Amino acid sequence: MGTKAREIRLKSRPHGLPEASNFELATVDLPDPGPGQVLVRNTYMSVDPYMRGRMYDRPSYVPPFQLGEALQGGAVGRIEKSNDPTFKVGDLVESMSGWREAFVSTAAPLTRLPNSGVQPQAYLGVLGMPGMTAYTSFHRIGDPKPGNVVFVSGAGGAVGAAVCQIAKIRECTVVASAGTDEKIDWLKSVGVDATVNYKTASNLLEAVRAAAPKGIDIYFDNVGGAHLEVALEVARPFARFIECGMISIYNDKEPAPGPRNMAYIVGKRIKMQGFIVSDFLDMREQFQKDMTEWVLSGRIKSQETVENGIENAPKAFLDLFSGANVGKMLVKLD
Amino acid sequence: MGTKAREIRLKSRPHGLPEASNFELATVDLPDPGPGQVLVRNTYMSVDPYMRGRMYDRPSYVPPFQLGEALQGGAVGRIEKSNDPTFKVGDLVESMSGWREAFVSTAAPLTRLPNSGVQPQAYLGVLGMPGMTAYTSFHRIGDPKPGNVVFVSGAGGAVGAAVCQIAKIRECTVVASAGTDEKIDWLKSVGVDATVNYKTASNLLEAVRAAAPKGIDIYFDNVGGAHLEVALEVARPFARFIECGMISIYNDKEPAPGPRNMAYIVGKRIKMQGFIVSDFLDMREQFQKDMTEWVLSGRIKSQETVENGIENAPKAFLDLFSGANVGKMLVKLD
Repeated sequence: MGTKAREIRLKSRPHGLPEASNFELATVDLPDPGPGQVLVRNTYMSVDPYMRGRMYDRPSYVPPFQLGEALQGGAVGRIEKSNDPTFKVGDLVESMSGWREAFVSTAAPLTRLPNSGVQPQAYLGVLGMPGMTAYTSFHRIGDPKPGNVVFVSGAGGAVGAAVCQIAKIRECTVVASAGTDEKIDWLKSVGVDATVNYKTASNLLEAVRAAAPKGIDIYFDNVGGAHLEVALEVARPFARFIECGMISIYNDKEPAPGPRNMAYIVGKRIKMQGFIVSDFLDMREQFQKDMTEWVLSGRIKSQETVENGIENAPKAFLDLFSGANVGKMLVKLD
Repeated sequence: MGTKAREIRLKSRPHGLPEASNFELATVDLPDPGPGQVLVRNTYMSVDPYMRGRMYDRPSYVPPFQLGEALQGGAVGRIEKSNDPTFKVGDLVESMSGWREAFVSTAAPLTRLPNSGVQPQAYLGVLGMPGMTAYTSFHRIGDPKPGNVVFVSGAGGAVGAAVCQIAKIRECTVVASAGTDEKIDWLKSVGVDATVNYKTASNLLEAVRAAAPKGIDIYFDNVGGAHLEVALEVARPFARFIECGMISIYNDKEPAPGPRNMAYIVGKRIKMQGFIVSDFLDMREQFQKDMTEWVLSGRIKSQETVENGIENAPKAFLDLFSGANVGKMLVKLD
């Protein structure tokens, strides 16, 4: 006896900022799981800025989404039917089969959630890909030293908020940029040293200079664009730029010019390095150990913005680009 | 009894491209060397692109040149009078007291030239700062592997030409960009695999794509600007960008926009790193050993463009920015 499940498909490729019309809701009939298969009912799915890149039809580090097919992304769910001896009904799993209410799968692509006492959806945020993105790159590329000044853009998002708090644990001074007072207040509540509301600042450079009068040693870049130019301007010698994302330019219809002050890379001996979280898989165990401990002890806090129902997944995704989310943007599915 | 010596002073700070009128020739009376001092007669002095940066009145990794004072830079010369037991008349030394025919100094800032059998002025080029710039950064930042494709801009200059040949010794494929057919021919004669004349190419990106159809693993950047944008475009995953200089933008009156494709730094996981040769002083001994061996064995060749007389030093410097020099630009003083 099959199961009906709804999913979100890519209907058309966005040109510039994605719109609701680029997505369509469809209902599929799932077969009963065959031998070695399970049926997973998703409880939460993740929307992340990097997914915008997969909507272009071009070669990249992950293959493009296909038109007319369900999108993919991180999700947590529970086993509803099992034909595999390693999973029993009720087990919680993480998968890359988001953007759908349920799916049939073999055991291989599923990761059992640890019994850590943390809410399952944290494995889509601070204990999942965004948290690991923050943890691995901040240590590996950022090479933080106590007393370093760390500037974080997109600090109100899932990755940025984790970076800010990890940097505090590493005894750095943290300057956080975000786009709403709500985010700014939350960042202050978790201990960042100075904040910049880039949407209300009349001059971003002056605002960052005031927040980081001695300059910066590490820049964690989630946004690119004007923030990157400012970071080059205020960087101290031997600064490290962790190039995590450039959400400010992902939707540009025509490529915008880059920073006018690139020459500082030479004169200030800046290291600017891009990465994908999977480049640092060797740090996974250390990340899970440290971050679980920090979350359970309250040293690292996280916020969630939650939309309800698969039909609102496109809205949740679109809201990322207006910065409507505080912390991790999730869609609750069940 | 004193000695008359001519020197070049900074008369006014250039705005944009430096001009002859920014410099002035002056004659000074040098005293006889006191106890512990020597009189050095310079035989060759160096002009280098980085000196443009010192003509701005701004903080940088080296202090700005002062108006009305002699410029500074690398020079080789011989001891003409000595009041210091460690030097005898005729000894050859290297110093940072270029832009003048002679000077009085204590022994400390002078480096005795090794008795290597190589021409003294090579210590201003392939065996000196430009050679060490190439050698240290190519190994330390570039992390070359046999089979890597290395793209070098400004390949006809002192640093670029050394990089091309070191890369061949490291079994890389070398794609060299330069601005005259003479430079291109010379680069071919020393074994680079493909060349681009950026001044005659109708489309730089297409020219580089044709020269490096599989993309590039290392970009050695001497010029910034359009070459940097092209390098980002053709970079393969995990490419290393050695940011040595950006001569194309040193004279911009208004800062020009940077590359429009900065987002590739994230997606392709590019590492872009600036440096100053003095950051790698720990590699000096290894550099001198390897490079001396390579020069003496003919594995590394170098060219010189020589102007004669201190009065022509400004011309030699200005010619750097039109790319008139093939290889190391020198001024012969004696």
